[in-house]
Amino acid sequence: MVRLFEGVPVTIRSLKEGTLFRNRSRRGVPVPIVRIEGKYADFAVYETPALGFLCQSSGISTMSSRYRKSAGDKTLLSFGVRRAHPAIAPMIDRASYIGGCDAVSSILGAKRIGHPPQGTMPHAEVLVFGDSRKAFDAYSRAAHKGTRKIALVDTFSDEKSEALLAARTIPDLYAVRLDTPKSRRGSFASIVSEVRWELDANGFRNVRIIVSGGIREEDIPSLIAAGVDGFGVGTAISNAPTVDFALDIVEVDGRKYTKRGKYSGAKEVYRCPKCLNFDVLHEGQKPARCPDCGTKQESMLHTVVREGKRTSKEESPDSIRERVLSELKSISEP
Amino acid sequence: MVRLFEGVPVTIRSLKEGTLFRNRSRRGVPVPIVRIEGKYADFAVYETPALGFLCQSSGISTMSSRYRKSAGDKTLLSFGVRRAHPAIAPMIDRASYIGGCDAVSSILGAKRIGHPPQGTMPHAEVLVFGDSRKAFDAYSRAAHKGTRKIALVDTFSDEKSEALLAARTIPDLYAVRLDTPKSRRGSFASIVSEVRWELDANGFRNVRIIVSGGIREEDIPSLIAAGVDGFGVGTAISNAPTVDFALDIVEVDGRKYTKRGKYSGAKEVYRCPKCLNFDVLHEGQKPARCPDCGTKQESMLHTVVREGKRTSKEESPDSIRERVLSELKSISEP
Amino acid sequence: MVRLFEGVPVTIRSLKEGTLFRNRSRRGVPVPIVRIEGKYADFAVYETPALGFLCQSSGISTMSSRYRKSAGDKTLLSFGVRRAHPAIAPMIDRASYIGGCDAVSSILGAKRIGHPPQGTMPHAEVLVFGDSRKAFDAYSRAAHKGTRKIALVDTFSDEKSEALLAARTIPDLYAVRLDTPKSRRGSFASIVSEVRWELDANGFRNVRIIVSGGIREEDIPSLIAAGVDGFGVGTAISNAPTVDFALDIVEVDGRKYTKRGKYSGAKEVYRCPKCLNFDVLHEGQKPARCPDCGTKQESMLHTVVREGKRTSKEESPDSIRERVLSELKSISEP
Amino acid sequence: MVRLFEGVPVTIRSLKEGTLFRNRSRRGVPVPIVRIEGKYADFAVYETPALGFLCQSSGISTMSSRYRKSAGDKTLLSFGVRRAHPAIAPMIDRASYIGGCDAVSSILGAKRIGHPPQGTMPHAEVLVFGDSRKAFDAYSRAAHKGTRKIALVDTFSDEKSEALLAARTIPDLYAVRLDTPKSRRGSFASIVSEVRWELDANGFRNVRIIVSGGIREEDIPSLIAAGVDGFGVGTAISNAPTVDFALDIVEVDGRKYTKRGKYSGAKEVYRCPKCLNFDVLHEGQKPARCPDCGTKQESMLHTVVREGKRTSKEESPDSIRERVLSELKSISEP
Amino acid sequence: MVRLFEGVPVTIRSLKEGTLFRNRSRRGVPVPIVRIEGKYADFAVYETPALGFLCQSSGISTMSSRYRKSAGDKTLLSFGVRRAHPAIAPMIDRASYIGGCDAVSSILGAKRIGHPPQGTMPHAEVLVFGDSRKAFDAYSRAAHKGTRKIALVDTFSDEKSEALLAARTIPDLYAVRLDTPKSRRGSFASIVSEVRWELDANGFRNVRIIVSGGIREEDIPSLIAAGVDGFGVGTAISNAPTVDFALDIVEVDGRKYTKRGKYSGAKEVYRCPKCLNFDVLHEGQKPARCPDCGTKQESMLHTVVREGKRTSKEESPDSIRERVLSELKSISEP
Amino acid sequence: MVRLFEGVPVTIRSLKEGTLFRNRSRRGVPVPIVRIEGKYADFAVYETPALGFLCQSSGISTMSSRYRKSAGDKTLLSFGVRRAHPAIAPMIDRASYIGGCDAVSSILGAKRIGHPPQGTMPHAEVLVFGDSRKAFDAYSRAAHKGTRKIALVDTFSDEKSEALLAARTIPDLYAVRLDTPKSRRGSFASIVSEVRWELDANGFRNVRIIVSGGIREEDIPSLIAAGVDGFGVGTAISNAPTVDFALDIVEVDGRKYTKRGKYSGAKEVYRCPKCLNFDVLHEGQKPARCPDCGTKQESMLHTVVREGKRTSKEESPDSIRERVLSELKSISEP
Repeated sequence: MVRLFEGVPVTIRSLKEGTLFRNRSRRGVPVPIVRIEGKYADFAVYETPALGFLCQSSGISTMSSRYRKSAGDKTLLSFGVRRAHPAIAPMIDRASYIGGCDAVSSILGAKRIGHPPQGTMPHAEVLVFGDSRKAFDAYSRAAHKGTRKIALVDTFSDEKSEALLAARTIPDLYAVRLDTPKSRRGSFASIVSEVRWELDANGFRNVRIIVSGGIREEDIPSLIAAGVDGFGVGTAISNAPTVDFALDIVEVDGRKYTKRGKYSGAKEVYRCPKCLNFDVLHEGQKPARCPDCGTKQESMLHTVVREGKRTSKEESPDSIRERVLSELKSISEP
Repeated sequence: MVRLFEGVPVTIRSLKEGTLFRNRSRRGVPVPIVRIEGKYADFAVYETPALGFLCQSSGISTMSSRYRKSAGDKTLLSFGVRRAHPAIAPMIDRASYIGGCDAVSSILGAKRIGHPPQGTMPHAEVLVFGDSRKAFDAYSRAAHKGTRKIALVDTFSDEKSEALLAARTIPDLYAVRLDTPKSRRGSFASIVSEVRWELDANGFRNVRIIVSGGIREEDIPSLIAAGVDGFGVGTAISNAPTVDFALDIVEVDGRKYTKRGKYSGAKEVYRCPKCLNFDVLHEGQKPARCPDCGTKQESMLHTVVREGKRTSKEESPDSIRERVLSELKSISEP
Repeated sequence: MVRLFEGVPVTIRSLKEGTLFRNRSRRGVPVPIVRIEGKYADFAVYETPALGFLCQSSGISTMSSRYRKSAGDKTLLSFGVRRAHPAIAPMIDRASYIGGCDAVSSILGAKRIGHPPQGTMPHAEVLVFGDSRKAFDAYSRAAHKGTRKIALVDTFSDEKSEALLAARTIPDLYAVRLDTPKSRRGSFASIVSEVRWELDANGFRNVRIIVSGGIREEDIPSLIAAGVDGFGVGTAISNAPTVDFALDIVEVDGRKYTKRGKYSGAKEVYRCPKCLNFDVLHEGQKPARCPDCGTKQESMLHTVVREGKRTSKEESPDSIRERVLSELKSISEP
Repeated sequence: MVRLFEGVPVTIRSLKEGTLFRNRSRRGVPVPIVRIEGKYADFAVYETPALGFLCQSSGISTMSSRYRKSAGDKTLLSFGVRRAHPAIAPMIDRASYIGGCDAVSSILGAKRIGHPPQGTMPHAEVLVFGDSRKAFDAYSRAAHKGTRKIALVDTFSDEKSEALLAARTIPDLYAVRLDTPKSRRGSFASIVSEVRWELDANGFRNVRIIVSGGIREEDIPSLIAAGVDGFGVGTAISNAPTVDFALDIVEVDGRKYTKRGKYSGAKEVYRCPKCLNFDVLHEGQKPARCPDCGTKQESMLHTVVREGKRTSKEESPDSIRERVLSELKSISEP
Repeated sequence: MVRLFEGVPVTIRSLKEGTLFRNRSRRGVPVPIVRIEGKYADFAVYETPALGFLCQSSGISTMSSRYRKSAGDKTLLSFGVRRAHPAIAPMIDRASYIGGCDAVSSILGAKRIGHPPQGTMPHAEVLVFGDSRKAFDAYSRAAHKGTRKIALVDTFSDEKSEALLAARTIPDLYAVRLDTPKSRRGSFASIVSEVRWELDANGFRNVRIIVSGGIREEDIPSLIAAGVDGFGVGTAISNAPTVDFALDIVEVDGRKYTKRGKYSGAKEVYRCPKCLNFDVLHEGQKPARCPDCGTKQESMLHTVVREGKRTSKEESPDSIRERVLSELKSISEP
Repeated sequence: MVRLFEGVPVTIRSLKEGTLFRNRSRRGVPVPIVRIEGKYADFAVYETPALGFLCQSSGISTMSSRYRKSAGDKTLLSFGVRRAHPAIAPMIDRASYIGGCDAVSSILGAKRIGHPPQGTMPHAEVLVFGDSRKAFDAYSRAAHKGTRKIALVDTFSDEKSEALLAARTIPDLYAVRLDTPKSRRGSFASIVSEVRWELDANGFRNVRIIVSGGIREEDIPSLIAAGVDGFGVGTAISNAPTVDFALDIVEVDGRKYTKRGKYSGAKEVYRCPKCLNFDVLHEGQKPARCPDCGTKQESMLHTVVREGKRTSKEESPDSIRERVLSELKSISEP
């Protein structure tokens, strides 16, 4: 979004991308995430696209973070681009990644984050071969060296027997993927538990289990307990609800006023670095220490554009993702 | 989506765009909406983008149709592009329009459907003037001739007094728009009813009332009863849940088989033109008459690409929208 | 129960076995189903066993009737004896049968009702062979001539592929039975619908589908809609809630009194033969015509024991069952 | 059940009767309670009766234990045989007793557990006398010496007045029993509290209060708080849901496989003697220490039949009940 | 309330007392029930007491009407004054009566409505005698000639036995009253049904049954079905929620305006005499015919005070009650 | 109530007015709050009015205490008299005050408690002026010196702008009052938070915020968090549910008995001064120490009338209120 305002005579301060924030401060005041100073006429034309960039990608990153929080240290793969318009696939993949996914599935998306794409064998392959064993064998031979081999084991027969067949057919099998159809999912956790038991019973303790297909956030803990090692998540992340940011005028020529439902005047945003609680202050007001732990609060709005000039380099997806993961650790619920 | 397959050696038959369909036939069999014949290797690369085009835009059109069904003959405006990535604004606007919206708000989207964009005065204008009367006056003078003037009446004071002020200030006011903030919406229907009463009491019976801001489908009937003439709908439509279509192989070299959870073999789709109930048949099976009304059922899959050649011209958004509106009339619930 | 009182100097009048009755008359008075006259000291010792006979078997017959009502003209098999103490297997099977089941599974139970037992191949057979095809083949050869062959198709692979395999292996296959484990039952109706589709697609339109395993009464309509031809029901019937009949003294030497919560005095029971509504009257009171349809009501208590002598022959299970089925047709809900 | 297999050439290992177990181990694997080794042909015929013995009596014992856990050290009497078929009365009483009931009511059942049956005066007695005082007096004179006299106080008048009448009429009254009809049970706890108060107010502090009639497990705590000293429980225990055990083949000639939904291979069962959590292991696997408390886990499957020979004497109901009561103390919820 | 404004220079128009009205017109406009014209300074001091009179008594009358609607033609007695401050007992009784009660219990209240008070024997009487039979006998002798004798039958023993005792002791017993304590009310309807049965069984078919004690509106249908002839209702009516009327200024010197949430300008109120739907119009607007049935609508605001002079005589409680009962008949729900 | 019994030859002991008590003792016995000894004939006539005094005022005081507990140290004003009959306004105000309100609004009520009444400017004033600024100005000039000026800020415009206008117009403004109409109360807490923010942003940190209008007990915590300094509560307190006390005979001439549902005999009431748990004992029984904390329990029934003579002076409302507030502090929930 910053690129949009390069050359526009405004000064912009904002939270760093990837900062976890709550809707409102502990006193109930909405937290501003971007603050623009300038002549409205100069930037009015950018209002709609700027909001569009922010709202949709923030929605995706937020959902990705929630899944990451639930999944703990298990693998999390973003599979959702195929249900969204191709034009936004790179945006979706980048937002999923910085929110906490470990890898993405589109080629452009992968390029955007600077890491190789990741996928598994598709159902189509098994169907074209018309026989699971042949498909596993072909996949095993065709996969690029170094690729982690993940076999789909829900196509024709039961997951339990196909998982054993895959493990016996593909020598260096990394994982089996269960994309069990809804009509066969009486208890997905039980199916996973059985697959784990049979793989172990037959000496395949090192073959991992990955699940996909409509995985809801609330299903994750019981699936992990049943033995899941990784999750492929699709539209839950790519079609996440947008975050409904709005751009509001809060001060004109030093006069503080705004519309009903908004808070007038330029504001400062502070946060306790330990408790992560936010404080929103009238400009010029001095921040108190954190009422919970007494720590000095930190100013959170950083200048990113000064008079139309970018004041810092673009941050890498990895660096933003690092911030998200580190802050996620400090909070107790997703 | 059709354009994607031009030059690809496949034959495609599909429902006409804008055909209302149910997930499953009356016998519980899923209704296929597109049927592709060809060598899988020839079109596998198009699977992901093709699904992306279909799933997201179908989700948006479906939601737009539901709002249209609820809104009856009231005005329905698509306002949601500002919360989605700018790259898909034209797609969102087109899908909203063919689903049943009367107008769209983005310039590219409007061009895509061949009709002028439609909007209202923005909150920013009122705020920049810092006074509702001045803002109404300026808007009244600046508006292009022929534009329907719609005044925002929720910025500073109560909707009731601002509506009267707008009606008194703008001579040819077409409508007032209530975008009342959530915190002031105890009963939106009551506010509308009061505004209607006061406008009437003061001789402004011809000024319409348009509402916007998080309008839910289920709110519409009571708002119409209270006097609403039009609705502006945003993310409910632009961020609608995608429709989770999938592409499945169901027959290989004349052998009918498919994966668990799917129905094997090439299929024919029939529909009763009166009851709109679908029937899915094995290829070659002859359609029965409609079990409800005895009408002859019609074949619904039309060839759109034959051996990589488009067999018909692209249909205009207006023509597709016509089909949607006409079919909507035949069903009893959204 | 009647046999218990042969030789006991009492006179007993009761509803005919298999009569449908409600707990209370249309005026809210509990309907007595048996009326005993005699010296309490003479029959006190039989109170507990008589109640035991009535309460448990009535509970089972009632539940069987409910399933019959839901299942309409589909096949209903009683499979539940294996989860109950072997000593009551014949009682369970007889009660299931007169309540409306078409056949029972225990040998003694079958003898008790005078019809051959009915079952299917067991899971154990498939497991002992370790391969579905071999098991189907062995079952096909071993089955007695004239037996309807029913193949279990949920043991190793998916129901869809095993059903096709069974149909191809057993030339005169009567039905496939789906006893799908709970963990694989995301939507049992969908699995049934798929199996039906694949059997049809491959030319096995005449192979029936039978389901079993924790079938709940409320699941039946959707399963029939999906294509089920028969149901095997187990503990839902064999472990049905007992009907809590009690034996109460309501008149002593012509003095009418009883304990709190009961209705004193000898009673007559009438029923409208068309509406099946009951009326409970003080002895000697004359029955009115049915308040709904004006039909003459019929007296329902028939003398079965007079002074310790049985006054009629024991009725056959078939005859009792006939009565149940005929009355079930007259009521609208189970 | 063990008796059934005497002389059958199989080896059986099982949990000791009365061992508390959960459905699944802490890892989600179902806990096997009996393990049979042998030729399937040799014991197939016993499958149905063996399951019947286990499922119904386990259901009854389990429910009895739940009531015992809720009732703490209050008296618990099994009253339910009169609503079940007389043939299984001894089984019901034995299962109730080993599950935790203090006494049973049928004569055969009492013989089966080696303790005298226990009951109270019946409603019929009061009704035959037609007057509570006379009935109490007669009961007082007729009762065997040494019997604990328990008077029914809900027949004609209010519990409060009948309880006082009984206490004044029967010199050595042990308890009053409230079998209050449903229609008079607005708050059973309040009635009990009043009866306690009036007995105390009139000097009968040593007369106990026993309640019966549809007592639900969840009612017990508030009834104890109100002053109840004992409970008579009927069909809740005698008609308890059966436990749905199944007999599955899990290994054939050393090959580990089983049907879908089951876990293959012979298994060992371990339990932490302190936490009572179960672990199910592949045969040969070595048990870890309890992950919660570090205690060494104990093997739970004990050989009861070796090659058709019983390896230990039948355990007495008292000894089994002892085990149940001792384990119940270690768990926190019923 | 009208008396309050005698001599105050205002003109008042209002709905007639006892007119059933809905909160809002069919168009959603609140229905004004009183319209005052005059100088605000002249009547401001009467605002609070006038509202007080209206709000509390309207609440009571409304609740009384709801009970009347539910009770149909059964007797309805207002018993609630003893739980309200004695100063408002006459107001409560009058409001209960005009709302639909058949009689009231306070002496002043009865005088206020011009009918004798009505009650039953009290619990205290039975307790002072310490014996139900003596109390019934004393009550029978002491009651004024012509009084309908109603005996309380829930004091010491069960309702069933006390009802019989009362019927046998009091020769001309009109009714028994069941004020069963909450703790004994498992199913009040069942107790009533039993009492009816026993009275009939013993030849007392003409003794009525009256119930009291926390009778909720929704309990009434099942109690009538069980045989209740009359209801005594207490705090449900006397402590009914007040109706929250407010007095609003809606026009000043011909200028129509009012506060937010209100509708400005003097209004006319019309009602369809058949459908009872209300229409609220701007003054001067002409009423349409009823949109449902085409009947001419009637003006509902009647002048009661003109320039401080009462324009009609005070209406009698009986006449107002007549209006309520007649309008109640026209509506389908309470 | 005590005054009623002066000169009546009875002895009365009761809890002190303002004592917090629970319905039942820790053993489930109802707590008597007044105990009368005497000849029933002497005081029977006072039963109804005495109950009336107690039940309604106790209901109001109880509700007032609940609001006080929720409101903590915020201001609580009783506004409800205008919706109740004027005859009981003083009773309502006194009961509200002793229950914990800080001030009352009726003139007689205020006299009754010995403190000046408290109110705010009314909506009528703003409407008569037809302009908020003029109304504020007039109010500012007219208010008595020393009155705390509270301006209503919800009449014409939004609360935020009217609050600022009031603060700028009235130099010594004490508070603004938000009586926001229901239809504008989407989130009352958010409106309060915005008003607080704007007042602060414009230098009016010392202007308080008072809310009124249907404030429910459960809304209070979130409103305090949003910045509310005081509450005006109306019918929730003045129309509170009455407390359903009853007068029961429990002992006659030393014989202890009472009706069903009651506890017989004269009783003593004890309370632990620390835990506030009650114990109800048979007369003469010695109180144990508190089972929770071991403190000596205190006798709670104090003689207020001895043989018709008052034994102590009437307590002042302030003194009673002091007791309520002090006991409220000891309990954890309202």
